[in-house]
Amino acid sequence: MINKDKYFFTLEIAVRDYELDSEGIVNNAIYLHYLEHTRHAFVKQEGLPFGSLTTEGLVPVVKRMTIDYHCPLRSGDVMVSCLWVERKGPRFIFYQDIFKKQGGEPVVSAAVTIVCLEKDGRINRGDDLAARLSKYFDKP
Amino acid sequence: MINKDKYFFTLEIAVRDYELDSEGIVNNAIYLHYLEHTRHAFVKQEGLPFGSLTTEGLVPVVKRMTIDYHCPLRSGDVMVSCLWVERKGPRFIFYQDIFKKQGGEPVVSAAVTIVCLEKDGRINRGDDLAARLSKYFDKP
Amino acid sequence: MINKDKYFFTLEIAVRDYELDSEGIVNNAIYLHYLEHTRHAFVKQEGLPFGSLTTEGLVPVVKRMTIDYHCPLRSGDVMVSCLWVERKGPRFIFYQDIFKKQGGEPVVSAAVTIVCLEKDGRINRGDDLAARLSKYFDKP
Amino acid sequence: MINKDKYFFTLEIAVRDYELDSEGIVNNAIYLHYLEHTRHAFVKQEGLPFGSLTTEGLVPVVKRMTIDYHCPLRSGDVMVSCLWVERKGPRFIFYQDIFKKQGGEPVVSAAVTIVCLEKDGRINRGDDLAARLSKYFDKP
Repeated sequence: MINKDKYFFTLEIAVRDYELDSEGIVNNAIYLHYLEHTRHAFVKQEGLPFGSLTTEGLVPVVKRMTIDYHCPLRSGDVMVSCLWVERKGPRFIFYQDIFKKQGGEPVVSAAVTIVCLEKDGRINRGDDLAARLSKYFDKP
Repeated sequence: MINKDKYFFTLEIAVRDYELDSEGIVNNAIYLHYLEHTRHAFVKQEGLPFGSLTTEGLVPVVKRMTIDYHCPLRSGDVMVSCLWVERKGPRFIFYQDIFKKQGGEPVVSAAVTIVCLEKDGRINRGDDLAARLSKYFDKP
Repeated sequence: MINKDKYFFTLEIAVRDYELDSEGIVNNAIYLHYLEHTRHAFVKQEGLPFGSLTTEGLVPVVKRMTIDYHCPLRSGDVMVSCLWVERKGPRFIFYQDIFKKQGGEPVVSAAVTIVCLEKDGRINRGDDLAARLSKYFDKP
Repeated sequence: MINKDKYFFTLEIAVRDYELDSEGIVNNAIYLHYLEHTRHAFVKQEGLPFGSLTTEGLVPVVKRMTIDYHCPLRSGDVMVSCLWVERKGPRFIFYQDIFKKQGGEPVVSAAVTIVCLEKDGRINRGDDLAARLSKYFDKP
């Protein structure tokens, strides 16, 4: 079952039929779209619309992703997409789980490592993004 | 402004950031996904889930589409996707308009011709689909 | 059969399996990707890489599209994507046909109206783009 | 540099402009499409077209993926997509690396765990697939 207390943010997303592949299940790449959409909705809720982040010159990019596929989504399914975040220096690790809304069955679990790039391509130390998300991180 | 009385069906859809192209606007092909998603939601509301239509052996396919692009959608936009349908023998013409939810500005207008294919690839006369959607068509 | 003499440009494109939908055929929206990819390859061959066009401040956008779907593409198919162009003032009409490589069967036929937008969103008169493509237009 | 000796299979793939996101780089989800396309091309070369695999009742599905993103692809880039495979009981681990064709810079590295599902959803022991790919596996 979904323990929403664990997460910073949850979002409901409905499968759209064009996301199915020829097996009638959502294609494996599409889950990365769902995960990205959830991260963008989260930072937007925090007053960090994706657009403004990039006009400040910082471009968040995915450096690493580990994803486990538990159970495929099909036509008509609605999912609950959940995340929490951990900071490790310049790296922000988004732990993201997707469940079926009906029944709560786990669909995918992912750990997504994000870094922010400066305009010159170097990795930003992450202090700006951490400050904007500070309420989620433990105080020393 | 959106005159919802004109339409058989309306659906709100939010832009997802991965649907933007390198110009920061929704890519022209993505609108066809929105239009298809709207048609599927419409027939599903009529008790015709896309899946059951195909297990009966009828495959609805797009034969022709005309689409005018009025104004691009961007990150954060929500659209109202509207449709009405006209039957011309075996052809079902879906007239589909998308508006910005905020302000009602027209985004795209499309006429989408659908036919149903039999299992052997021949075009179905359309009577089955018309019967299912009969409340929308004028009686003689 | 394909009459390549008619066209300014032809490009071979292979179907990738993730472009199939749950019917096992290429989804109707994907053909717009193929058509766009062909236009970009054409202007690139003319020394107009898509990127440089936009850094000059001109953004080509699709204003209108009419597309007829003759025959679906499936897994393993290779297509020949062909185009020629006509200018009507600020509008560039790309006539684009896609055929199966094997057998030459027509797949889709489209007329795609492109205009170039200035940075302020106004429609460019099209003289710059026409000059770059002048060898294709009849002299008075 | 690319050491092609290490791999069972390599495939050149060109970036298509519609695969770029609003940052002008290939979206992170698209690499999963490239990786899948490479796996399908590999099994097809082995006389195992994706379609025939599924009509035999076995559906290969992705169970787990780990992917490191080293360097983004951009408009005009061509990649060399390479793979080798290891079997661990019912699991087939595809080790997949993508390099820029020009210069050989690493783009992504992934380990993709595939299992074959029976028609009833159970995990197949993998002997059939292993037999078809036996020339790649060490003899005891």
